[in-house]
Amino acid sequence: MAYDLILLRHGQSDWNQKNLFTGWVDVQLTEAGRAEAARGGELLVENNLLPDVVHTSLLQRAITTAHLALETADRLWIEVKRDWRLNERHYGALQGKNKTEIREEYGEEQFMTWRRSYDTPPPEINDDDPYSQAGDPRYADLGDAAPKTECLKDVVERFIPYYETEVIGDLKAGKTVLLAAHGNSLRALVKYLDGISDEDIAGLNIPTGIPLHYRLDENFKPTNPGGTYLDPEAAKEAIQAVANQGKK
Amino acid sequence: MAYDLILLRHGQSDWNQKNLFTGWVDVQLTEAGRAEAARGGELLVENNLLPDVVHTSLLQRAITTAHLALETADRLWIEVKRDWRLNERHYGALQGKNKTEIREEYGEEQFMTWRRSYDTPPPEINDDDPYSQAGDPRYADLGDAAPKTECLKDVVERFIPYYETEVIGDLKAGKTVLLAAHGNSLRALVKYLDGISDEDIAGLNIPTGIPLHYRLDENFKPTNPGGTYLDPEAAKEAIQAVANQGKK
Repeated sequence: MAYDLILLRHGQSDWNQKNLFTGWVDVQLTEAGRAEAARGGELLVENNLLPDVVHTSLLQRAITTAHLALETADRLWIEVKRDWRLNERHYGALQGKNKTEIREEYGEEQFMTWRRSYDTPPPEINDDDPYSQAGDPRYADLGDAAPKTECLKDVVERFIPYYETEVIGDLKAGKTVLLAAHGNSLRALVKYLDGISDEDIAGLNIPTGIPLHYRLDENFKPTNPGGTYLDPEAAKEAIQAVANQGKK
Repeated sequence: MAYDLILLRHGQSDWNQKNLFTGWVDVQLTEAGRAEAARGGELLVENNLLPDVVHTSLLQRAITTAHLALETADRLWIEVKRDWRLNERHYGALQGKNKTEIREEYGEEQFMTWRRSYDTPPPEINDDDPYSQAGDPRYADLGDAAPKTECLKDVVERFIPYYETEVIGDLKAGKTVLLAAHGNSLRALVKYLDGISDEDIAGLNIPTGIPLHYRLDENFKPTNPGGTYLDPEAAKEAIQAVANQGKK
């Protein structure tokens, strides 16, 4: 028995473009981001990887990415599950702040710790911060368990239990599963699937809008470690572009 | 205890515009239809009727209507349920046929019987008809139970049991429910909610894109019989326009 799992990181959002820390702030896709999502749907069709169920975060940039990809793939009718545990990492007090300004104010080392450390979260966001989710009805059920900041370790700890029950449950039922989510929630999952160390995960970047296919064996271990991008050339270029950015 | 139920008929589709019988053929919304859906979302916000769960058919014109309305209402994150029992009436062998040509070929009486009779379905569609859903994966689980034509009575008989279990289940849980569906599936429900006779239902038309709000008592009976359109003026004009069409 083999299982098909497809990861899809949402495309460009308003705040990617504006260079702001986003986290749980519910920003929209740009037109470029919408086009990336539709292209993701084409790749599903070209590779004959048609999902039977889609799991998304509660953030519209992932939800709309899933909608546009499935529209293109003529699969809008499949089962839908949404859960906060697929959300992007909560960026704490940095949400809504300009990345360049934060780097200048706190220095390169602190900036990179907040961005890439596995277990050091940014400071918590205040409930009265305009970019807090304190009053957001979608998280009301969480009560005090709603995060006010997260490091990648926190994302692993909330997302992997969901993956192990809900996603593996669907895979076991013979369904091809599409996960439409975010840079850090998908890094958390890839870390788990590929057994990447706490240190090495810092260097891993998942390109936006290019479906990443994992084929899993009967123990839900990848038979294609690292997964297979459905557009390998575009993925390579995108990963190289991020690596080059880091060098500047 | 009172419950809030909101019905939303999808906006204009490609085939409305082309004057073709649609039924279960999975056509897209036009730009005008997309604008209707977004306007529907504005009306939900203006009336402070924010759904906690959305039920849609398996047809993209209803699914996309729900997506666009919820996007405008900032409620894309709510729970989603999709079921074939909310689908439009299956139009049998008429699917894909031009309405004017069918009227000319079969005469006004037969034409109106197929369109408006409560219990006379059109002829069944052949499995090899280009507009048949015989090979459509979304109906594979139905097997031989998948309809090949339907009259409104058939729609009542498939949709009301779903309503009584799934929709009332959500209402009982205290959720405001949005149903994004079709002219005939919503007529089936309104017939049931308002106790409309088999004869009188023929004269009832539900305008597209204008949310229709039912407030239900503890026995799930409407306290506002006939429901309340969230844009009553626009609804009145749309209903009048359909009535005038009939007179031509």
